[in-house]
Amino acid sequence: MYFNFFMPTKIIMAEGCIRKNAELMKEFGQKAFIVTGANSAKSSGALQDVTEALEGLGISYYVYDKIKSNPTIADVYEAAAIAKEKEANFIIGIGGGSPMDAAKAIALLAMQNLEEDQLFSGCYEKAALPVIAVPTTAGTGSEVTQYSILTNDKKQTKTSISSPVLFPRVAFLDARYTINLPMNITINTALDALSHAIEGMLTIRATQVSNSLALDSINRISQCLRYLSPQKEVGAGNQLLMEIREKLLCGSMLAGVVIAHTGTTAVHSMGYCLTYFKNVDHGRANALLLPSFLRYVAKSDQEAVKKVLTAMGVTSMDEFEAIFLRLLGEREQLTQKELERYTAIAIQAKNVANSKVKPSREDIENIYTRSLQILY
Amino acid sequence: MYFNFFMPTKIIMAEGCIRKNAELMKEFGQKAFIVTGANSAKSSGALQDVTEALEGLGISYYVYDKIKSNPTIADVYEAAAIAKEKEANFIIGIGGGSPMDAAKAIALLAMQNLEEDQLFSGCYEKAALPVIAVPTTAGTGSEVTQYSILTNDKKQTKTSISSPVLFPRVAFLDARYTINLPMNITINTALDALSHAIEGMLTIRATQVSNSLALDSINRISQCLRYLSPQKEVGAGNQLLMEIREKLLCGSMLAGVVIAHTGTTAVHSMGYCLTYFKNVDHGRANALLLPSFLRYVAKSDQEAVKKVLTAMGVTSMDEFEAIFLRLLGEREQLTQKELERYTAIAIQAKNVANSKVKPSREDIENIYTRSLQILY
Repeated sequence: MYFNFFMPTKIIMAEGCIRKNAELMKEFGQKAFIVTGANSAKSSGALQDVTEALEGLGISYYVYDKIKSNPTIADVYEAAAIAKEKEANFIIGIGGGSPMDAAKAIALLAMQNLEEDQLFSGCYEKAALPVIAVPTTAGTGSEVTQYSILTNDKKQTKTSISSPVLFPRVAFLDARYTINLPMNITINTALDALSHAIEGMLTIRATQVSNSLALDSINRISQCLRYLSPQKEVGAGNQLLMEIREKLLCGSMLAGVVIAHTGTTAVHSMGYCLTYFKNVDHGRANALLLPSFLRYVAKSDQEAVKKVLTAMGVTSMDEFEAIFLRLLGEREQLTQKELERYTAIAIQAKNVANSKVKPSREDIENIYTRSLQILY
Repeated sequence: MYFNFFMPTKIIMAEGCIRKNAELMKEFGQKAFIVTGANSAKSSGALQDVTEALEGLGISYYVYDKIKSNPTIADVYEAAAIAKEKEANFIIGIGGGSPMDAAKAIALLAMQNLEEDQLFSGCYEKAALPVIAVPTTAGTGSEVTQYSILTNDKKQTKTSISSPVLFPRVAFLDARYTINLPMNITINTALDALSHAIEGMLTIRATQVSNSLALDSINRISQCLRYLSPQKEVGAGNQLLMEIREKLLCGSMLAGVVIAHTGTTAVHSMGYCLTYFKNVDHGRANALLLPSFLRYVAKSDQEAVKKVLTAMGVTSMDEFEAIFLRLLGEREQLTQKELERYTAIAIQAKNVANSKVKPSREDIENIYTRSLQILY
């Protein structure tokens, strides 16, 4: 038996957890730099809870709310320059994966001058500023990982910084912030988290301990899927129960703990191309590809796939895929040329080598073909 | 849903993990103070692996091998004075719960002057020296907890220091160190770990996440119990399979993660008296009391008990108790006077208040009576 387990983030989940645990922020200094997007932190109430807590502690703050979906390398350099100028002592990332991932990269860049090449090296002279993460979606798991995934225009895909210095110091999980998330975001993020847990089990770094957490996560998330429907809009009087939102948030965090230890598989490498070139939401991109990848894995590792299906409460790959078909609706189209291009980019990603069953170029092309509508 | 999760210890489990990860010790300084008992660290091979790793790194070390079972407050003050004198930068605790718990208290006392009253306060001006923990039994879970449990002669029981500064920085889990453990120690420590996992589920601080880890731990440990027998001695050619030793060590660590979050119940408070006054091994003391405590809990919280039984792979309390009866053999005797005295001491412990179903003085007396042979 072999495993490593390292999860230095203090994880606190509760309604009102920021208010109740505000004093935890005290040790990080007198100047906070809040990294968020234009909307969700505000509309969810998370930003207000954070700023009220900071004000109560007499900590000054600057709100940087310019993070868009899939932040680029240039974006984080720009923000880090402002964080330096503001002499921030710590960073608070509020939002989905994009603001949290950006917050970590900004925390690293605010402490040192790094060329773009060095940024992805994982070796740094200094640590990063302490990061506090406040997720407002239940999908990314970024609140408990050492990853910051940035859009890399040079490589025409997403590339990730991975370093233990990026682990958030504290993750505040309050499911109230997710209660009004639109249905499509709820679905995409839930399937993203599910993909993390499942992919974690299919990596070469999977261990008994990470698998145990993954199965717990799969079980929690899959229990919620029946309540999700692309035809049903979330709105006043039509909210998902708090209990479901909590289960999704907890499941997503657990899946984050999994991938912090295992990394992801070819599904993520392949998904990045759909996001980069076709602007497909990250969670949706993974979800589109996962069933076909799992079918591919089943050909040589039936045992792993069986565990996944059991935790999902289904008995066959067909049943598994039907869940995704229902939630994803019509699939995106790819031209033959796009298919070739994405395959060529995806095969080079390190997540492919991290897959226990390693797909060849042909396998990747087949998975894309089976997962999307190919225009001939 | 409410939970906290904090586990800053880097946990590394593998055969040869110390050698393979020696460089991790580099960051802690140039002088190591090794805390261990007279025998097990040497006979298990753990001490040699540690000293070879330190020599390879050019780190000097002092071996303090005077820790006996159930170390007292005086013991750790004495050792800390030597650690200070040797100007140790970090502490390596090797052994069962006693050396590891002592190592943590020594690490704390080596950094600051504390009166005995302050020692148990949990509030300290300075942190503790970094601790590396190397378990040579599979029971205590001390390698992943913030507790140091010391024999307190003033209070005639064991009392615990609890502080986040006591979490070991690294835990090296190598099941080879447990391969030659005598059967009685294997049984007592396995049941100690099992008790941790089960008690964790029965505390007021139990959460969905701690319960999930607890069930995993119970499941792993209970799978091993059929291989244990008080009649069978471990010796040359009669070793437990490495696979079983690994499962026990992993299960014990997971149970440690559980109690780091939940604490323990009345079982521990009651067991401390058996250890303090009757010199009953700590694990055995818990195991003697656990079935009757569980029966007591079942009267008002059937659901929790059912989960425990399911994870153990049994269907009734009788079946559960039969496992303990087989492994524990003849039970210790208590006089009526001892019974009264222990009840009076145990009822005052904070672990009693930490039990979800809180036993009264009468309940505690009944549990002792049912668990031991009372001499009238």
